Amino acid sequence: MKIARFSSGGDPRYGIVDDDDLVVLAGDPMFSGFDTTGERIPLADVKLLAPVIPRSKVICVGLNYADHKADMGDVGPKNPLIFLKPNTAVVGPGDTIVIPPVDGRIVHEGELVIVIGKIGKQIAAADYADYIFGYTIGNDVSARDVMFADGQWARAKGYDTFAPIGPWIETDIDAQNLAITTFVDGEPRRVGTTSDMIHKIPEIIEFCSDVWTLLPGDIIMTGTPAGLGGFVDGQTVDITIEGIGTLSNPARNRA
Amino acid sequence: MKIARFSSGGDPRYGIVDDDDLVVLAGDPMFSGFDTTGERIPLADVKLLAPVIPRSKVICVGLNYADHKADMGDVGPKNPLIFLKPNTAVVGPGDTIVIPPVDGRIVHEGELVIVIGKIGKQIAAADYADYIFGYTIGNDVSARDVMFADGQWARAKGYDTFAPIGPWIETDIDAQNLAITTFVDGEPRRVGTTSDMIHKIPEIIEFCSDVWTLLPGDIIMTGTPAGLGGFVDGQTVDITIEGIGTLSNPARNRA
Repeated sequence: MKIARFSSGGDPRYGIVDDDDLVVLAGDPMFSGFDTTGERIPLADVKLLAPVIPRSKVICVGLNYADHKADMGDVGPKNPLIFLKPNTAVVGPGDTIVIPPVDGRIVHEGELVIVIGKIGKQIAAADYADYIFGYTIGNDVSARDVMFADGQWARAKGYDTFAPIGPWIETDIDAQNLAITTFVDGEPRRVGTTSDMIHKIPEIIEFCSDVWTLLPGDIIMTGTPAGLGGFVDGQTVDITIEGIGTLSNPARNRA
Repeated sequence: MKIARFSSGGDPRYGIVDDDDLVVLAGDPMFSGFDTTGERIPLADVKLLAPVIPRSKVICVGLNYADHKADMGDVGPKNPLIFLKPNTAVVGPGDTIVIPPVDGRIVHEGELVIVIGKIGKQIAAADYADYIFGYTIGNDVSARDVMFADGQWARAKGYDTFAPIGPWIETDIDAQNLAITTFVDGEPRRVGTTSDMIHKIPEIIEFCSDVWTLLPGDIIMTGTPAGLGGFVDGQTVDITIEGIGTLSNPARNRA
């Protein structure tokens, strides 16, 4: 089931994607279930929003595909390398990625995103599925040279608009075996499959929840495959994950 | 004026500290002003809570005192080195710092904390004061060896309970000239003054708000002076900042 968050003029609402329509839900399904209002709205008539508001954590797993890790110089620990973006970086499908005036390249990192649905701490890997609401697509946008200049990545990966997610959440999918491709202006730049993750989803949930209490609405970006990563003002970044959909965001320099 | 957040059994409330009493406020003063209810409650009769709930960002400025930066090997960029803790790490005065089973030392970092009171982006240094609600005390608890093992600090500094803040927010103070001392079981371990910050508060506000939209309730931990930093199960860490008060937290190993 694909769950979208949208606006048709008023307050944000939620709906189930049904072909070209949305079947409107009575509330946020993460907290109030899947009761529908009976209303149907054509997808073409709404603005899709980031499918979840992370009230607490936007977690990223760095260097989680061997080919990308090699590209980055094979640095990093043996355990999952986890870091944080602020929730103020989150934008939705179609929203503009605003490129700040920093030195060096701005790169895309197309990633499968776990959406946490239930509070949990010290979750056993075997129980991981109980805590997952679904999966969406994310772009771990990164100012590559700022990453190296600062050493810490919170700034380089945390600028406002540097965490596009969407277009919706898929609740029923085998997330560990999906093709994932990132395009710039329609050209494929990063191509991979989620089956190549070094640290798989159960391990990620166990590891992150040993450190942090996971809250409903927390999201975990699970890392990017290798590929050429730059984009500039005026280009559009599309990320397609098999079985979920395509997240598309244009980029513009900060005015 | 000292603003505390407290519980006397029911929902959290806010109050102005007046000698040994709290003058109860009608709502969260960050959003609804300083109207009082007329009620007074002895401080001794309440449980003080973290004085603010960070709904978005717990920002830290690393290596912001020259003597501490030297202790850490003089690494880091010339700009403020900023990183993030998750809001799930925040606890209040008197709450227990839970030490997870990780390799190496757990250290305290006593810090002046800026509490943001107003939404802002690209704030000019000269306007910094308009965005500050007040100041409190924070402990940037860090698993020192995990910092070095991961490279990224989000895990080492982000464990649940690794961001104690309090005991209250002081709204009227010259924050750039305050003695700050961290004690373990009453012995002074880190002694400094906020006048020794490399990057001063106006520059920190300008720099952080160029990267991130600052929201009311965001907090910024401004760095720690040098000193011996370890503490273990059973010890208590007190941090005193002149004109604000003392933040005290016991430490226990995770059960």
